[in-house]
Amino acid sequence: MYRTHTCGELKLENAGQTVELAGWVQTVRKFGAITFVDLRDRYGITQLLFGEDLNAQLESNPLGREFVLQAKGTVSERSNKNKNIPTGGIEILIQSFSILNKSAVPPFTIQDDTDGGDDLRMKYRYLDLRRNAVKKNLELRYAVNRSARNYLHEQGFYDIETPFLIKSTPEGARDFVVPSRMNPGEFYALPQSPQTFKQLLMVSGYDRYYQVVKCFRDEDLRADRQPEFTQIDCEMAFVEQEDILNMFEALVKRIFKDVRGLDYTEPVERISWEDAMWNYGNDKPDIRFGMKIANLKFPLHVFTSKIAFLQNSPLGDESAAGFAVFDSAETVVAISVPGGSEYSRKQTDEITEWVKRPQIGMKGLAFIKCGTDGTYKSSMDKFFDAEKLKAIAGATGAQAGDIVLILAGNEERTRKAVSELRLEMAKRLGLRKSNEFKLLWVLDFPLFEYDEESNRWVARHHPFTSPKPQDIQVMINNDPAIKDAAKYLEHPYANIKANAYDIVLNGNEIGGGSIRIYQRALQEKMFAALGMSKEEALHKFGFLLGAFEYGAPPHGGIAFGFDRLCAILGGSESIRDFIAFPKNNSGRDVMLDAPSTIDKKQLEELQIKTAGKS
Amino acid sequence: MYRTHTCGELKLENAGQTVELAGWVQTVRKFGAITFVDLRDRYGITQLLFGEDLNAQLESNPLGREFVLQAKGTVSERSNKNKNIPTGGIEILIQSFSILNKSAVPPFTIQDDTDGGDDLRMKYRYLDLRRNAVKKNLELRYAVNRSARNYLHEQGFYDIETPFLIKSTPEGARDFVVPSRMNPGEFYALPQSPQTFKQLLMVSGYDRYYQVVKCFRDEDLRADRQPEFTQIDCEMAFVEQEDILNMFEALVKRIFKDVRGLDYTEPVERISWEDAMWNYGNDKPDIRFGMKIANLKFPLHVFTSKIAFLQNSPLGDESAAGFAVFDSAETVVAISVPGGSEYSRKQTDEITEWVKRPQIGMKGLAFIKCGTDGTYKSSMDKFFDAEKLKAIAGATGAQAGDIVLILAGNEERTRKAVSELRLEMAKRLGLRKSNEFKLLWVLDFPLFEYDEESNRWVARHHPFTSPKPQDIQVMINNDPAIKDAAKYLEHPYANIKANAYDIVLNGNEIGGGSIRIYQRALQEKMFAALGMSKEEALHKFGFLLGAFEYGAPPHGGIAFGFDRLCAILGGSESIRDFIAFPKNNSGRDVMLDAPSTIDKKQLEELQIKTAGKS
Repeated sequence: MYRTHTCGELKLENAGQTVELAGWVQTVRKFGAITFVDLRDRYGITQLLFGEDLNAQLESNPLGREFVLQAKGTVSERSNKNKNIPTGGIEILIQSFSILNKSAVPPFTIQDDTDGGDDLRMKYRYLDLRRNAVKKNLELRYAVNRSARNYLHEQGFYDIETPFLIKSTPEGARDFVVPSRMNPGEFYALPQSPQTFKQLLMVSGYDRYYQVVKCFRDEDLRADRQPEFTQIDCEMAFVEQEDILNMFEALVKRIFKDVRGLDYTEPVERISWEDAMWNYGNDKPDIRFGMKIANLKFPLHVFTSKIAFLQNSPLGDESAAGFAVFDSAETVVAISVPGGSEYSRKQTDEITEWVKRPQIGMKGLAFIKCGTDGTYKSSMDKFFDAEKLKAIAGATGAQAGDIVLILAGNEERTRKAVSELRLEMAKRLGLRKSNEFKLLWVLDFPLFEYDEESNRWVARHHPFTSPKPQDIQVMINNDPAIKDAAKYLEHPYANIKANAYDIVLNGNEIGGGSIRIYQRALQEKMFAALGMSKEEALHKFGFLLGAFEYGAPPHGGIAFGFDRLCAILGGSESIRDFIAFPKNNSGRDVMLDAPSTIDKKQLEELQIKTAGKS
Repeated sequence: MYRTHTCGELKLENAGQTVELAGWVQTVRKFGAITFVDLRDRYGITQLLFGEDLNAQLESNPLGREFVLQAKGTVSERSNKNKNIPTGGIEILIQSFSILNKSAVPPFTIQDDTDGGDDLRMKYRYLDLRRNAVKKNLELRYAVNRSARNYLHEQGFYDIETPFLIKSTPEGARDFVVPSRMNPGEFYALPQSPQTFKQLLMVSGYDRYYQVVKCFRDEDLRADRQPEFTQIDCEMAFVEQEDILNMFEALVKRIFKDVRGLDYTEPVERISWEDAMWNYGNDKPDIRFGMKIANLKFPLHVFTSKIAFLQNSPLGDESAAGFAVFDSAETVVAISVPGGSEYSRKQTDEITEWVKRPQIGMKGLAFIKCGTDGTYKSSMDKFFDAEKLKAIAGATGAQAGDIVLILAGNEERTRKAVSELRLEMAKRLGLRKSNEFKLLWVLDFPLFEYDEESNRWVARHHPFTSPKPQDIQVMINNDPAIKDAAKYLEHPYANIKANAYDIVLNGNEIGGGSIRIYQRALQEKMFAALGMSKEEALHKFGFLLGAFEYGAPPHGGIAFGFDRLCAILGGSESIRDFIAFPKNNSGRDVMLDAPSTIDKKQLEELQIKTAGKS
C-alpha cells in the first residue's frame, strides 16, 4: 500500500504520528524556504509542509498541479487552522517524498467552478470526474443504488440478471441490433427493458424480482436523453395496483431517507390522469406549488364524453360575450399567479412575448389583475364587466394581489402552453425549490392512444399492460377496428383505462409501471388491437404467449429511471452530470471517439456491408 | 394482495387462523370425498384440504398440475405430519377457492429429477426455472451477488456503471459490434470487460471501484462458454500486488461464509506460475489433493533458462538406460496414485487406453506398482532395476501400495496429458469433492507469449498488465523485435514476469487480474511490443494514453468470473445452470429464437446489408 492514511482522515488526535499519504497535488504555495502543498484524494485534502531541508530536492523535482505524490511525515497541529475542511486542524511535516507520476497542465482547472466548457470536459472526462462537483454526483448515485438494493432485499426481492443479447421486437422505440457472426444474416437486439423476461420470471414463480440494469433505445436524441440508460426494474406476482403503489412509494421514501436524510412521512398524493391533464395540463404535474388550471371553456368532445367533475364555465356555456378570441377558441384556460397584480405593462408584455415564442406557440395572452383594493383590471375590460372578471378570477382561486393569466386556442397546444406557463411562472417566483421533494402517483391512464396515420390503436404504456378489471370484457367483446376515423372517440376502446401508474417527483416522471396481462386470450386481443397479425404476434412474442399457457400468475411491476431519479435528488436538471461516462446529444462518446469505423476483417466475419461500400 | 401468507411460512402456531394462499398446484390427490392439493410457491409447499362441501365446485372446476390457485381457509394441525418440509405440521381446511389461471400439461415434470431433456428445458426455460434444483441455483447466485456487494461496500468500494456502447478495440477476443443509425458506417462495440474504464476511474481518483457487470465476447463457443457473461469487476489505486491479494481473498472467504456457512480461516496458498506448471501441469491446479507431478526428464530449453528448483532426474542426466521411449522423449513425467498397486492388468490397460484417446493423445503409459511388501513391479522391468524403480517412485512421493503412472513425449502435450490424468485419477478416487473448497493464488505469470504465426509477442493477460517492477527497465531498454524466431526464448522479453495473479478454486480459475501500467512511455512500449503502430495505438487507446499524461496513480485490480464462481459454489461443473436465461452452445436463445432476421426497414435505417442480399 502506498499510504497509511487517506487525505480525509487525519485530525488533531493523530498529532505526532508518522504517516504516509498519496494523492494529487491540488496547489503548491511557496513561502520563502518552506513550501505548502495541498494533497487531494477521494476522501479529502490534507496540507503538507515541506521544510527547508527538502528545498534542494523540490527544486530538482518540482511539483506541479495534478502530480501524483507519495509523502511521508509527521502529523502536526496547524497554527493557522482551516475550519472549512475536516483535516484543517493539522498539517504533515514532510520527511521524504516521491513523485509517483507527473502531470501535464490540465486543459481546465480541477475545481467546482471550472473554466472548462462542456465539450472539453467531455473529451477529458477522466479529469472532469476529479472535480468535487462531479464526484459528489457519482457518490450520490451509488448511495441511491445501495439504498434501493437494501430496501428491495429486505422486502424479499431477488436481483436476477436477464440477457442483453435478445430478440428484436421493436414496439414503439427502435432497437439497437447486434449482428451475429455465428448466424450470418441474423441479429440480436439489445433490450429496451427486461420487460418480457421479468414477466417470465413471474410465470416461473420468482415472485419478487429486481435489477439495476442498463437499457438501450435507438431514438433520435433529444437534449438529456441517452442511448443507454439505467433502470431500477421491479416486478411482483400475486399483487394488485394498491400493493405496488405501497411497496414502491416506500422505496422512494427510503431512498430520500438514506440519501438525503429526509423524512417523507406524509402519504403520497394520487391523481387520475384525467385530473392531472385538466388541473395541470400534463401527466406529470409538479405539485410543489398550486396554481391549478381553471378550464374556462371546454372543448366540444368533453361534453360528449361527459366528464363528471366539470362545472359550468364562468365564461358562460356557449360563448364569451362577443370576445372573438374566446368565441373561436376550442379551449380557454387560466392560472392565477401570486403577487402579479403589481406587474407593469412591461412585465405583462414580456410574459405575452414568452407565450408567443415558437416553442409555446400561443397567439397572445389575456390577463386580469386582482387589485389589493378589490378592483379588477383586465386586458379584456371591453368584453367582460367586473362581475364576470371576478367570476373568472374566482375560478382560478386568485386572491387579491394576484394576476390571472388566460390562454385560448386549440385544445392540445393551449393545454401544453398553460402547463409550461405555470412552470415558468413558478420558477420565476422561486416555487420550484430543488431541495423540496414532492411525490405524486398518476393513475388511470388511457390504455390506448389513437394513431391517426395508421387509423389504429397504439399502446400508451406498452402491449403488456392490463386494462382495468372492469374494462377487460369491453376489450374482449369488441372489435378493435376503427370504422369511422372521425368518430374514434366513440369507439369503446377509447375509454378503456389502463391498470397503470406513474410516479412523479417534482414534475418529472421518475418511474412507471402497470399490472400486466397474464391471460393468453387477452394478450392476443391486445396484439390484434395494435394491428399485429396472429403470425407476427407468434413470431415476436410466441415465448410469452406460450408461457401464459402454463399457469401465469397475476403480476405487475414498475421501472424507475435511475439516471433521472439521481439527477433530481442531486438538485440537477441534467442526467448527464450523474453518469460517469455519458454520451453527447448525438450519441457519441467524445472521449473514446465512438462509434467509429471497424476493421474490414470484422465486417467480413460478420458478413455485412455498410452503405456505399458494397 | 392475493394472499395473506406464503406457502412456506405457516406452522403449528398458526393453527386456527384464517389465511389466504396463492400458488401453483403441485399435486392433486383424491381420497373419496376429500381432495388434497399441494400448493407451491417460491417459499415452499403447503397442503390444502378440500372437504366434501367443495366437491361439486371442484368437479365443475377441476384442478390440474401447475394451475394457479387462490384459496382461503383455516390453518389446522395435520394428523399425518410431514417432517421433511417446514409446513409439514399443518394443512389448510379450504373454505373457498378460485382458479386464477389454468395450465396446459407441462412438457416435462416440474421436479428435481425432471423427465425433460436439455433442449426441451431450454425451450421452456420459464417452466424449467420453476424446478427447485434451478431455483436454488439462482438463489445462490443472488446470495453471492449480495455478499460480494456488502463486502466491497464495507471496504469503501463504489459501484460505478461504465458504458456498454463503446469503441471497438479488438485485442485477443472478437468484439460484438452495434451499427450506429445516427452515424452510418460506424459501429459501437459491446465491452469485453470494463478494463479501460475502470483504469480511467483510478486516474480520476475514485480509488476503489466495483461492478457486477455483463461482458461480451464473440468467440467460437466451447461447451460451457456464453457470449455474454458476468464479472465482479474491481479496481484499486495506490496498491501493490500484496494489497490486492489480501483484499480479494478476503472477499472470497466472505462469500464462502455468507453463502455456504463455511469458515475458510487458513491463509490462501500461493504458487508461482512456473511451479504450477512443473508440479501440476497447468496454471490452475486443483490442490484439494496431492499427486504432484515428478519431472523425470526435463526438456532441453530448461537447462538454457536455468530454472533454479530443478534437481537431478532419477532417470539419469542424459539418457534412460536404453529405453527408447524415454530416450527419444522431450519430457518424462510421473504421478503416484494412492492404492493403485493392486490394479489388475485390465485396469492398467484401461488407463493406458484412456491416455491414448485423441483428447489426451499419448502413445502409451508406463507404470510402477509399489507393492505393500516393498517390491516394485513395472511395465519397464527390462530397462530399470529395482533401485532405479525405487528412485523413480521416490521422486513422485509414492508410498507402499501406490501405483506410479509415467508419460513421455513432447513437452506441451505430455504436460497437458499428465495434468488431465492427475485430475481423472483423483476423480475416480473421489478426491475432487464438490463440498470441499480450496483456494490458490497463482503468481508470476510470464508477461508475454510468443506467437509463432506473426513472430511477435502477444500479451498473456492483456496489454494493460504491468511487468514486475524489476522487469520494467528490461522492457523499456530492449527492442521487442524478435530477430531469430528459433531463439525467441533467448530474447530478454521471454523472461519478463507479469505483475499478475489468478485466483483458483478447486482447479478452476475464478478470477484474475494485475497491477496495471500507469506510465505512458511503458504503455506505448507495450503496444509496440504487441506489434501495434504508433498510429494504431493512438487511434484505439489515445484516450488512455492521454489520461496517463495527467497524473495517473499506481493501480491494479481483478475480475471474478461470476457465473463460474456461482457454479462451483453450487457444486456444479456447468455455468448454464446458474444463469436465468442462458444461450446454448451455438449462442442461440432457443426460448426466444434469437438471434433472428430483422425487418428490412431496420436494415435500411442502419444502412447496412447482409451477405447475399446486397
